[in-house]
Amino acid sequence: MNKDNESLLFKKRLFKTLESVEDALKLIRESLEDNIVDVVEVDVRNSLHYYSAEDVHALQDVPNYDRSAVDGYAVISSDVIGSSITNPTILNIVEKIYANSSYEMLKPLHHGETSIVYTGAPLPPNADAVVMFEDTKADGLKVQIFRPLSPYQNVSRKGEDFQKGSIVVGRGTLIRPWHLAALLSTGYEKIKVFRKVKVGVMSTGSELTEEWQNTGVINTTKPLLLSLIKEEFCDAHDFGTVPDDVDAIRERILYAIKDVDILLTTGGTSVGVTDLVSDAISSIDGSKIIFHGVRMRPGKPTGMAIVKSKPLFILSGYPVASFTGFEVFVKYAINLLRCSKPLSYPKIRAKLARRLAKPVGVKAFVRIKVYQLNGEYVAEPLRLTGSGLLSTLTRANALLVIDEDVEGYDEGETVEVQLLE
Amino acid sequence: MNKDNESLLFKKRLFKTLESVEDALKLIRESLEDNIVDVVEVDVRNSLHYYSAEDVHALQDVPNYDRSAVDGYAVISSDVIGSSITNPTILNIVEKIYANSSYEMLKPLHHGETSIVYTGAPLPPNADAVVMFEDTKADGLKVQIFRPLSPYQNVSRKGEDFQKGSIVVGRGTLIRPWHLAALLSTGYEKIKVFRKVKVGVMSTGSELTEEWQNTGVINTTKPLLLSLIKEEFCDAHDFGTVPDDVDAIRERILYAIKDVDILLTTGGTSVGVTDLVSDAISSIDGSKIIFHGVRMRPGKPTGMAIVKSKPLFILSGYPVASFTGFEVFVKYAINLLRCSKPLSYPKIRAKLARRLAKPVGVKAFVRIKVYQLNGEYVAEPLRLTGSGLLSTLTRANALLVIDEDVEGYDEGETVEVQLLE
Repeated sequence: MNKDNESLLFKKRLFKTLESVEDALKLIRESLEDNIVDVVEVDVRNSLHYYSAEDVHALQDVPNYDRSAVDGYAVISSDVIGSSITNPTILNIVEKIYANSSYEMLKPLHHGETSIVYTGAPLPPNADAVVMFEDTKADGLKVQIFRPLSPYQNVSRKGEDFQKGSIVVGRGTLIRPWHLAALLSTGYEKIKVFRKVKVGVMSTGSELTEEWQNTGVINTTKPLLLSLIKEEFCDAHDFGTVPDDVDAIRERILYAIKDVDILLTTGGTSVGVTDLVSDAISSIDGSKIIFHGVRMRPGKPTGMAIVKSKPLFILSGYPVASFTGFEVFVKYAINLLRCSKPLSYPKIRAKLARRLAKPVGVKAFVRIKVYQLNGEYVAEPLRLTGSGLLSTLTRANALLVIDEDVEGYDEGETVEVQLLE
Repeated sequence: MNKDNESLLFKKRLFKTLESVEDALKLIRESLEDNIVDVVEVDVRNSLHYYSAEDVHALQDVPNYDRSAVDGYAVISSDVIGSSITNPTILNIVEKIYANSSYEMLKPLHHGETSIVYTGAPLPPNADAVVMFEDTKADGLKVQIFRPLSPYQNVSRKGEDFQKGSIVVGRGTLIRPWHLAALLSTGYEKIKVFRKVKVGVMSTGSELTEEWQNTGVINTTKPLLLSLIKEEFCDAHDFGTVPDDVDAIRERILYAIKDVDILLTTGGTSVGVTDLVSDAISSIDGSKIIFHGVRMRPGKPTGMAIVKSKPLFILSGYPVASFTGFEVFVKYAINLLRCSKPLSYPKIRAKLARRLAKPVGVKAFVRIKVYQLNGEYVAEPLRLTGSGLLSTLTRANALLVIDEDVEGYDEGETVEVQLLE
């Protein structure tokens, strides 16, 4: 049998085992139930972009007392009913209270009394409202109040921001700046988080060069993936490029998989006549190919295996196809390992600038350029194929996912696209 | 004059100088024309999340030759006109060409000849199309072609991804993974970028504690700002907290401003009776307050000064007010210094869950929780005031900006909100 017929046979064999995207995700989920990464404790101030490993409950009410929201006079609201400029209520000033005054030291108000409070100051016992300086006139130790107040007017109530015991940050939440500040405000100095997921990349392909040359193909897919890994708040590990040789690929996989939680390979999966990465994986004791070949476009040759109990993703050597494999499958796996969910892209509706057709039974991921025209969003498909074209990524700002059972869309049809930027 | 009347006077003075948000942005722009940060050269592989300092033009066409997009036979398309299963064209096989084959070594095709090409392989001279293995049958050194081809079918044309001289990454572009890969593919190993903008934060407030205590106020605003700075791909510098003392504030400003491009202060600007940060700035030779007080909510006391030729932003001590000041003004300044534009948030239209009213003449930034209900987006305003409430940030996923001349919106009205996550 000549090599070309072998190639054809391989393609048929591959095609037979193609999974739908949904089934592939299910297989990933089932395979990674025991792969959740360790929990570590970090200072809250250093916790930015970690994922919380627990539901964090507020240790106390925030604010911990009723506090003034303005500068003014704390009063008992029933004392000032009916107050006006022409009929002011006159109260006796008891003390001044600042944001850092201790609640325990405050003098309780009796009827006819008031205390000066600055923004953030705890209200003294019995006070239930604050009248702003603007609505008063002080005269020595007495003050005229020119307006009535409803109970708790101008008061930040105890527990109004966070109630003791309420959840400040849920398990699996990406810690953003406001979560970090909220954790500090409710009394936390440390937080349990999932340690960073370590993701390695190794490329296969004798034709690949690391630097630009006139012959061969510069390996842009590996730097692309390493950067995507960093944008997912993971540690990225570069395991270089190996030639098209099953033994070399196997040795590099065994070397790399020890140090990472997830290993990505690029190439060696659809070009040429044999499937070197699959063969290398199959030659490793206890390894298992979970799926290989997905009914999606681009990214059809994407696969996943378990090697030494760790997930290995077989990605295309082509940048756009590997990008799609990363977006759809690797991100999903990363988030399973830290008990989180992939951040979903915001969606907008836009009018398609030209007709898009695709085969039924294949899920398509089309790079889109969205722009506004006469106050309307227009979605211009950049390319349905062309998995080698980086320019479709640099020019795209959105993604259109076309489901398996859809044949395509007509020009002018309204579609929902995901915004990438 | 007693202190409360002083406070009132101060507030009136402040109010008189309030700028609109648009005017404040214009003042910032005019003040920072000479503050652009230095340009440095970095390895493209380390350039993630820098901002390009130049329009980068492709050094060569990508692909640099016409290359095959599939595995198959390169042909002269006019040779195979009318080919079919029943009437195949028979061609002589000349050689095999791989992705890493050198174009200069290839044998040109003559009529009646073909070469085997694998995906990514350069097409031999005279070839202008590729027929896939599936549509052929090889027999020794001859092959039957079963179908016609249009010119350039299954060919990635020279310059199709990037044409020599075309812009790969524009000046001021944030370098994302695909830009990095595109730069490598067009022949770049180094790129000129703006160095990271250095932003410092110092807090003022005798009431502030760095750790949680029963009295006083834990300083959550500084860690919030430091984290926001990091999310803007800047270097964050922590200059601690100083008490409410003009001399102490001035000394800390002078110490901090030396090491950063932008300094942020928090607090000391609207609470209590004097404006300590303004006084400290005014006591520094050659300093100038550009504006102080903005017709916005929250964040009214936000200000900006030039100290030692560098921008200093006077932010509120309250987390949500300082957050708004950062979002609206500091981000704007950061991006001026690296010749970029703030990333705009995607916008969606949603129905307002309850009525929102605000004073005319003030621009309001309302934190919103957006969710889907019966297939429709609903925008639930979390709070119009409450600039101390971190929970409005942790619960919000969107922002509604209400322009100065709008009084508010009714329940059920459709509004456009910016998605924060």
